[in-house]
Amino acid sequence: MMDYQGSLHKINKQISVDDLNGKVANYIPELANVPEDKFGMYLTNIEGEGSGFGDCNERFSIQSISKVPSLTLALLTEGERVWERVGVEPSGDPFNSLVQLEYENGVPRNPFINAGAIVICDILLNTLKDPKKEYREFICKLSGNSSITYDEKVASSEKLTGHHNRAMINFMKGYGNINNDVEEVLDFYFHTCSIAMSCKELSEMFLLYANHGKLLSTGEEILSAKRTKRLNALMQTCGFYDEAGEFSFRVGLPGKSGVGGGIVAIYPNMYSTAVWSPKLNEKGNSTAGIAALEMLTDITGCSIF
Amino acid sequence: MMDYQGSLHKINKQISVDDLNGKVANYIPELANVPEDKFGMYLTNIEGEGSGFGDCNERFSIQSISKVPSLTLALLTEGERVWERVGVEPSGDPFNSLVQLEYENGVPRNPFINAGAIVICDILLNTLKDPKKEYREFICKLSGNSSITYDEKVASSEKLTGHHNRAMINFMKGYGNINNDVEEVLDFYFHTCSIAMSCKELSEMFLLYANHGKLLSTGEEILSAKRTKRLNALMQTCGFYDEAGEFSFRVGLPGKSGVGGGIVAIYPNMYSTAVWSPKLNEKGNSTAGIAALEMLTDITGCSIF
Amino acid sequence: MMDYQGSLHKINKQISVDDLNGKVANYIPELANVPEDKFGMYLTNIEGEGSGFGDCNERFSIQSISKVPSLTLALLTEGERVWERVGVEPSGDPFNSLVQLEYENGVPRNPFINAGAIVICDILLNTLKDPKKEYREFICKLSGNSSITYDEKVASSEKLTGHHNRAMINFMKGYGNINNDVEEVLDFYFHTCSIAMSCKELSEMFLLYANHGKLLSTGEEILSAKRTKRLNALMQTCGFYDEAGEFSFRVGLPGKSGVGGGIVAIYPNMYSTAVWSPKLNEKGNSTAGIAALEMLTDITGCSIF
Amino acid sequence: MMDYQGSLHKINKQISVDDLNGKVANYIPELANVPEDKFGMYLTNIEGEGSGFGDCNERFSIQSISKVPSLTLALLTEGERVWERVGVEPSGDPFNSLVQLEYENGVPRNPFINAGAIVICDILLNTLKDPKKEYREFICKLSGNSSITYDEKVASSEKLTGHHNRAMINFMKGYGNINNDVEEVLDFYFHTCSIAMSCKELSEMFLLYANHGKLLSTGEEILSAKRTKRLNALMQTCGFYDEAGEFSFRVGLPGKSGVGGGIVAIYPNMYSTAVWSPKLNEKGNSTAGIAALEMLTDITGCSIF
Repeated sequence: MMDYQGSLHKINKQISVDDLNGKVANYIPELANVPEDKFGMYLTNIEGEGSGFGDCNERFSIQSISKVPSLTLALLTEGERVWERVGVEPSGDPFNSLVQLEYENGVPRNPFINAGAIVICDILLNTLKDPKKEYREFICKLSGNSSITYDEKVASSEKLTGHHNRAMINFMKGYGNINNDVEEVLDFYFHTCSIAMSCKELSEMFLLYANHGKLLSTGEEILSAKRTKRLNALMQTCGFYDEAGEFSFRVGLPGKSGVGGGIVAIYPNMYSTAVWSPKLNEKGNSTAGIAALEMLTDITGCSIF
Repeated sequence: MMDYQGSLHKINKQISVDDLNGKVANYIPELANVPEDKFGMYLTNIEGEGSGFGDCNERFSIQSISKVPSLTLALLTEGERVWERVGVEPSGDPFNSLVQLEYENGVPRNPFINAGAIVICDILLNTLKDPKKEYREFICKLSGNSSITYDEKVASSEKLTGHHNRAMINFMKGYGNINNDVEEVLDFYFHTCSIAMSCKELSEMFLLYANHGKLLSTGEEILSAKRTKRLNALMQTCGFYDEAGEFSFRVGLPGKSGVGGGIVAIYPNMYSTAVWSPKLNEKGNSTAGIAALEMLTDITGCSIF
Repeated sequence: MMDYQGSLHKINKQISVDDLNGKVANYIPELANVPEDKFGMYLTNIEGEGSGFGDCNERFSIQSISKVPSLTLALLTEGERVWERVGVEPSGDPFNSLVQLEYENGVPRNPFINAGAIVICDILLNTLKDPKKEYREFICKLSGNSSITYDEKVASSEKLTGHHNRAMINFMKGYGNINNDVEEVLDFYFHTCSIAMSCKELSEMFLLYANHGKLLSTGEEILSAKRTKRLNALMQTCGFYDEAGEFSFRVGLPGKSGVGGGIVAIYPNMYSTAVWSPKLNEKGNSTAGIAALEMLTDITGCSIF
Repeated sequence: MMDYQGSLHKINKQISVDDLNGKVANYIPELANVPEDKFGMYLTNIEGEGSGFGDCNERFSIQSISKVPSLTLALLTEGERVWERVGVEPSGDPFNSLVQLEYENGVPRNPFINAGAIVICDILLNTLKDPKKEYREFICKLSGNSSITYDEKVASSEKLTGHHNRAMINFMKGYGNINNDVEEVLDFYFHTCSIAMSCKELSEMFLLYANHGKLLSTGEEILSAKRTKRLNALMQTCGFYDEAGEFSFRVGLPGKSGVGGGIVAIYPNMYSTAVWSPKLNEKGNSTAGIAALEMLTDITGCSIF
């Protein structure tokens, strides 16, 4: 069995957050207030054994990482029809881009850019009875932890400043790709982004995607193996805004990042890992997070490629 | 050991090229003349054992599949400096697009779109003494077959009709990203595309990328494991023009397609496979080829995800 | 003195609305209900003498024609600072385009596309005490007719369906180019568009722009000659969405169209004219309106060129 | 009669080229060598009387100003069919933009951007027997001066560096909008741009467009009044790359600029004027030239608006 604990130890020793460039996300006060020297990482292997370092037990705003469970829940409740309203191609453009949305008639490129995740939330508003309650319960179930919940302050902050998202949703509504009231959809979307989790909790939740769609604890199949393959493929090609190629090139694992500074990555059949450091590069991805994951696949000599 | 022969047998029985849509590439006469019912597939596993069906021993124009050995040779002769002149991000746009090239000052998105491969050829013109001779020898060495060569008719045809490529190279020269005479670069580029190989030969050549960069026959390391990882990652995110997401989503393997109707795909540590059927979908990828590869990962239940 | 009455007579005889292609705007019910065979035209010369034909006394929704008095009022109350928030270049793109807005950081190309007029309305909300009341009074003053007012049904309809405008205003707010509450700005903007006027009333109002900025009735200078020149120049280059070149080429006069089917055009020192026919071409301009104005400058042999 | 001489005198006194920003075009050595303090202006009124100041008799490279006589000659030899291959709308994008060309299938926006003028040259290669000879003779005829000719050094320089133009022409050829050999078309195009004329000569040549298409000297009708109107309208909306709106807004006259630092402007029925100063603003238009023309319409209080 691979010595992941030793690898994490090396990463912890070699990466100094202070030496890395990057800026904490400042578009909402709740994110801007996070100390920039936070740094933690946790890895859970397919046997369920975990190890971590630093701030790996401190919760942070998972932000866009929530786009993965959102899509998962939409697939469970709406099925393959979701692909009629959102694509599976990398966007190749900055994450708020309206250009492609315009050229492609209001159908977002993929479910992991903001526009796509908003469409997914619109779908969930129709397929769930009590969306916020059921969404939270779903996250708790996947991670085996009933205490995970929304950070209402973060959700409220985003509502006040989410002009770009509000522009996009109205734009898509103009094309007929939003069914519900735009403010209701945005309220739900901002809540999904505001979920607070630690690296340990995230790595445990994402173990599902490394385990062919089954919960490790109970063996329950949440997603079929085929759907899990597809979700992982999407994380690989679309999980890092317009830096997906770079992440794939350097790290070689499917993953998803969030502007809260978190990144999850999974190695099918092997492990799930999460890293957190709030300083972001200009593409909106955690600088130390990417460095740590690159070091992980370098040290272990293992990636999906 | 997985029964790949049985899987290929099923694919051969179930896929009927006649039933599939698609059009043979018609932009040069030499490609348009290929009978549209050609269909073959070959798989070589990491033990070196192979099996195939149909027209798997007939040579065809590998076209853009050549972009992979071109990049490989450029990395061997020029090193990591190639990334100063070409990116690693998916393009998200049709394969002849000049838009991104314009917004990004003449630096192509990645080495697997035409613009990027042309820059790679410009690099090779500087790092090789006798580019056409050495390139052919490199292909022969990788595939263990000294009879592979250029199809001069195809190369000449492209020269007469390659207006889009000629537009792109002049555009990049305007930005200073082409060092050699444009006609000389294009002549070399069109030759690399004109290489003719069979599915069997392609699957044997690409075994290198499934074998951590080592030739199976001799154990010689052509590429380091790290560079092999990166090349595979690039095939995953950029190997299918603006259908990379779709291919990754459906098939779940790194690969590369060409407008001659060929597709190669590799499963690291497991196998390399090539399929050929000249009818292309509207994105320029072989319809039957994608269907066959999707069936392969479905039947075997195995992909990198 | 030119025989404008004779020219209009010929136009009335030669143009048959039934024979022309085009579709009545259908994005809001209030506009879709207008009978498609309506056709009227009115011309007021610089002496104040007028003549018209057809439905020239029936009021219709002036829609984007209101962007001209909106800009005029903004210049009077805010001065040249308006140009810090909106440009003076033709857009070259369809009238709802968000692409340019994105590339140009939320500053609309000119005040005669929707995004630009929305910024102008945002300015007016700050410079006027009772915007709707004062705006209506301004229109009444310019046209010498106190009965002109908003069509509340049209204004309400637009509020329900104005997703593209709502997308744009949120987008611009994200860039800091909207100061007021977006719904308040849109409510005011939709009201300005809903103003109902006849061809006769429009031609009388726009005489101002043919008369170097002075009201013909009283001689009062509303705009300086220099500002009038600039406003006319803007109508010339930006008054017809992405058909400004075509209109200039065929008609050779500054003007402004609206999706209600109205077009105004002015010939400095000579006349102001308005034409109405609700059938629109694919660029959103009245088919019969453009034909009538082209005929007018052909018959009279006079344009600004 | 308006005192144009007095106006030019004021302009000469008030505008100091040294105080204005701007850079001499440096993309070819022949243009870069022109002293940056050159400044001259000439105005010819509709009576044929002229006045000027400064370097108004020194010849310079007219560059894109040649696009106007090129279009004129194409209309005379090919007629209205030219509009099947080139549009009449402002481009709204920088003058080398390939983006719009791509979205609009190889049909340039208008004949006054490079791509459009290249199509016009392609047309002339088919309609003229000895293109270079006949083109020069046409220029000489319009200006009443048989000594005007090409600057072969400038033409040769452009051939060596014209990568963007070479990109565009190949791109258009890919769309089928170029009939002749690309190098032959470019050679002719670069020659048209290399014509050397003085402000006095330019103002005399462009008097045609202020005189309803007739040569002042002989009364010969070169262009019909209708075509002259259309050409002037095109200069108004498309004569200044992506600064056409700004020029129209500030100056209020149709005109055409060139990167040699020349600008011509005409006031129909009144005058034709040309100004030269090689320091260009970032849009590629002469800084002092625009300032001088704005001052001219301000001082005289007269523009087409």
